[in-house]
Order: sequence, then structure tokens, then C-alpha cells
Amino acid sequence: MAPIRIAIVGLGKIARDQHLPALGRSADYDLVAIASRNAAADEIPSFATLDELLGSGIALDAVSLCTPPQGRHAIARAAIAAGLHVMLEKPPGASVSEVLDLADAAAAKGVSLFASWHTRAAPAIEPARSLLAGRTIESVSIVWREDVRRWHPGQDWIWEPAGMGVFDPGINALSAATRILPRALFLEAAELSFPENRAAPIAAQLRLSDAARTPISADFDWRETGPQSWDIHVATKEGPVLLSKGGAALAVDGETVIDGGEIEVEYPNLYAHFADLVRGGRSDVDLAPLRLVADAFMLGRRRSVESFSE
Amino acid sequence: MAPIRIAIVGLGKIARDQHLPALGRSADYDLVAIASRNAAADEIPSFATLDELLGSGIALDAVSLCTPPQGRHAIARAAIAAGLHVMLEKPPGASVSEVLDLADAAAAKGVSLFASWHTRAAPAIEPARSLLAGRTIESVSIVWREDVRRWHPGQDWIWEPAGMGVFDPGINALSAATRILPRALFLEAAELSFPENRAAPIAAQLRLSDAARTPISADFDWRETGPQSWDIHVATKEGPVLLSKGGAALAVDGETVIDGGEIEVEYPNLYAHFADLVRGGRSDVDLAPLRLVADAFMLGRRRSVESFSE
Repeated sequence: MAPIRIAIVGLGKIARDQHLPALGRSADYDLVAIASRNAAADEIPSFATLDELLGSGIALDAVSLCTPPQGRHAIARAAIAAGLHVMLEKPPGASVSEVLDLADAAAAKGVSLFASWHTRAAPAIEPARSLLAGRTIESVSIVWREDVRRWHPGQDWIWEPAGMGVFDPGINALSAATRILPRALFLEAAELSFPENRAAPIAAQLRLSDAARTPISADFDWRETGPQSWDIHVATKEGPVLLSKGGAALAVDGETVIDGGEIEVEYPNLYAHFADLVRGGRSDVDLAPLRLVADAFMLGRRRSVESFSE
Repeated sequence: MAPIRIAIVGLGKIARDQHLPALGRSADYDLVAIASRNAAADEIPSFATLDELLGSGIALDAVSLCTPPQGRHAIARAAIAAGLHVMLEKPPGASVSEVLDLADAAAAKGVSLFASWHTRAAPAIEPARSLLAGRTIESVSIVWREDVRRWHPGQDWIWEPAGMGVFDPGINALSAATRILPRALFLEAAELSFPENRAAPIAAQLRLSDAARTPISADFDWRETGPQSWDIHVATKEGPVLLSKGGAALAVDGETVIDGGEIEVEYPNLYAHFADLVRGGRSDVDLAPLRLVADAFMLGRRRSVESFSE
């Protein structure tokens, strides 16, 4: 099968850390160009904008958008209009409604759209989903606490409104929870903590539930300088299930059954799935995680907390 | 056809002003009970809660929920579980995800769910929709400015987070715009003005668009003590179209073609539609207006404005 000719748009931290290595190891793709305002890749034709790339005459089948969510919609629209398949880094956009517009546009144009959620591609996610489908869930506690200074140095866009603040990692937790739990989640209450000098929250506490009235809590915090947590604790009638390390590890009834994380599998898995979508003429746009974040902003009570500076 | 035996839950201002008169004039319904914490209706069996009503043995087919959106989900869930058809006042819930849960539950139980938008039932809405389907739209300006002290006296719940503040009327504008305009709307930017002492906005400016890149603005303000505006101005290539009086009036190319508003038709129309849904075994749950509000809270920049007291 001919490789998919792909370009990366937005050569920032996530593109360099994850997308370039994943594409470099994949036989499904030829990385033929980069479009990025402030960066270029060695030995790959690079352009400042997608428009310049489209005007260059380089033959292209798909683009992977790694720019911040603010402004992503216009780029994705231009790519779809040019007949390209589109993969979106998470979060897929700055609003739920703009991503629905992209899904409509992709369907009308007959191209594939993939709203990717990298945490869902972690090694313990599908095993956790299968296991939990056969258990009686009593409660769920999501604990996602990390040090923003360590993981997001200099990323000013995450503090802008559409950057979502602590929901930037928190939406990873929600993407995992909405995948491993057997029923759709809905939001009941939220409290969001905004630093006095910032337009986005540094911490959030959510109360969620599902059709079985399962109590589900989420604790997102960017001020954790101690041990970092990316954990989902599921209390089941049959015993505890712990998804940890952001979906790389799984412990069942107290015993570790998966302990991944040595080898990076998330982005290779995402690109393999995107290749399947492109070759099968399908799209994959699940907006449940983004919808829950929008609900948290609408429904959440806000409190003001200490100013934040890097 | 036997009338639908219906109960009203939440006998507040909107129920007394609109629901009781509409049901009183309809041959489709028998109003058989009221459930309301602080109020009762003359000559109709009244209960403090839906649970008490359900336990009373009164035969019932449907409920119309007029309680504030906070707490509506639990009541709707109980009604659906009891096999009742459910009509929801706007907004249909405190979060998009909780209304999706209700839609799933209603489908599973085989009952009808109607997320009503009363402004969509105003007399000029369908004529405006038909007219605009045949015109080339250049831009849209939504202006919804009213005096909160005049229209919402003592309604403390609207200042709570899920009360949505100025989006309580604003969502009416969005329900009209998403109905009369030919393409789905998405949100691009928002600014929300919060009184220093309140948890909900008193004003909001939105920038929206659609698949044709139509510029669409919305100006929601609760501080308007002069002439009140509930208008949607649509500039079309063929001439101006103005929907005004909250959907009761329509002017085309400068000439008034509909000037309703004398006779109350919104709630009679809503109840007629609900009767059709119940008898046809269908649901009608369009969450586009609520999704746009959630997007505005997620994406919107907040600014602090003067404290508000009644």
C-alpha cells in the first residue's frame, strides 16, 4: 500500500516529542512537509503556513495539526477544503461547536477527520475497558495532579481561555474515563480555581455520574510539586481497579497486570488508527471529553486563588 | 383521542404565566396534578415533590418540568423511570451531558423527551426560516438587551452558575438563530462580563460563524433600562430581514410582514408539539443552543464589572 503523504502543521513541543518520532518509525506515512510559523525540521521542506505549503505544489494526502487549539479551526477548514485528511491533536478545538463544523465539512468533502485523544492510545486503556465491562462499578475517583512548571514550561497559550488551563491535562483523564467506563458520563457539579492573574483555571474539582448513578469524582490540580498522579481508581464489587501512569499501568485487585510506559506507544497507535481511517474512508470524532470540559466551565463555580507565575 | 394526563413540576413564575394558561386552553391535555415545593394551584391536587405525586396513585402520562435547571436532571430521571413522557422548560438542564443522559434514558424507556425552546415557537420564526432559506446571507447581528430588574425580579437562581446569568434570555436568542439560519452555528470568541459579587454574567459579546463563514455577532446585556431589544438583524444580498420582539415580528426589506405578540402562541405551540411527540412515540432534543452557551463559558474571556444588586 502506498504510504500516506502527510505534513505536520505546528512544530512545537508535542510535535517534536511525539509526532516526529512516531511518523519516523511508521511505514504507513511519508512525512513530506512541515508548516510552522517559528520552526523548521532538518531535511524536510518547511513552510511558515499551511497556505504556503498548499501553494508549493508538494503532493499531499493528509495533515496532522499540532498547533494550539486557538486558531486550529481555520487551519483545519483550509485543509479539508483542499481535500486533505485531517488529524487533530487534543483538544480538537477551542469550542465543541467548531469541531462539529469540521466534522460536517469533512463529511461533505469525503475526507477523514480524526479527533485524537492520545491517552486513549495508552497500553492499559483497552484492557481496563474490557475488564470493567464485566464488573460492577461502585465508585470512581480520578486524580490527575501534576506540576505545571515542570510539564508546560513557557506554554503561554495554555493560560489563555481556550487553552483550558488545568483541563489541558484534565481532558486526558476525561478521555480515558469516558473510554474505560461502560456508561456515558455527565457532569453534576464543578469548582474551578483561577489564579488572580490568569484567564484559565489552575485546579478543578468535578462531580460526575452516569446512568447507573455511579459517584465519580475528578481532582485536577497543576500545583502538585510532590509525587505526580495520573490515576483513575475504580472501586468495583469484585475488587479495586487502578489505571495509573496516565493509562500506561493497570492494577487489578491489588496486583499489577500491566506496567507499560517504557516504550512510547500512544502516538504510534494514534497514527496507525488514522491510517486505518484514511484507508477505510471513515472519521473518528468523539467529543465527549471536550463536552464535559465545556459543561464544567458553564456549570462550575469559580473561586479566585493565589496568582501564578512561572 | 384521550387527553394526555399531565402534571406540572415547579409552579414558579413561568409556570403560572405561561404553562397553566396554555394547558387550560388545550384539548390535548388534562392537567391532573402539580408538584411544587412552595406553591399549589387551586382545585388541582398538589404535592410538594414529584415523588409524593408518584406515590399518590393519580394516573399520569406526562410531566412538564418548570423547575430551575439546577436539580432538573434528577427529577427528569425519576419521571422517565416512572414511564412518563417529559417536557423540559428551557434551558433543558445545567449541563449538555446531563441532557444527553436524559435522552438516552428516555430512548431506553420508550418515552418521549421534549427539550423545549419557547422562542422557536414564536409566530415569526418559521416564516423567517423559510424566507432565509432562499436568500444569500451576508451577516447577522443578534441584539438581546433587557433590564434584568424588570424581567427577573427575585429570581436568585439565575445568578447561580447553572442559572447562566444573561444567557438565560440569551439562549432564547440562540434558539431562534439556530432555527432561522440555514447553517449550523459555531462559536469563535466570547467576552463575558461578571458583576464582582455574582457567579453568573450580566452581559456577553459573542462572535460566531457558520460553514459559509458568515460573520455573526451576539450582544446580550441585562443592564438595558432604555428600549428593550430582542432582535436578530440579518443582512441579505436581497435586502434586510429583521426578526424582532423575540420572534413575534418580522420585517422584510424594510416592510413589516408579521407583527404578532398580541396573542400568546408560544406555549400553546409547544404543548401542541409535545402532544404530537407523545402520540407519535418520538423525542425532540436539539441541544445546539445549550452547546453554544457551554462553548461561550469555556472559550470566553471574563471581565469583572460593577457589582449588581436588585
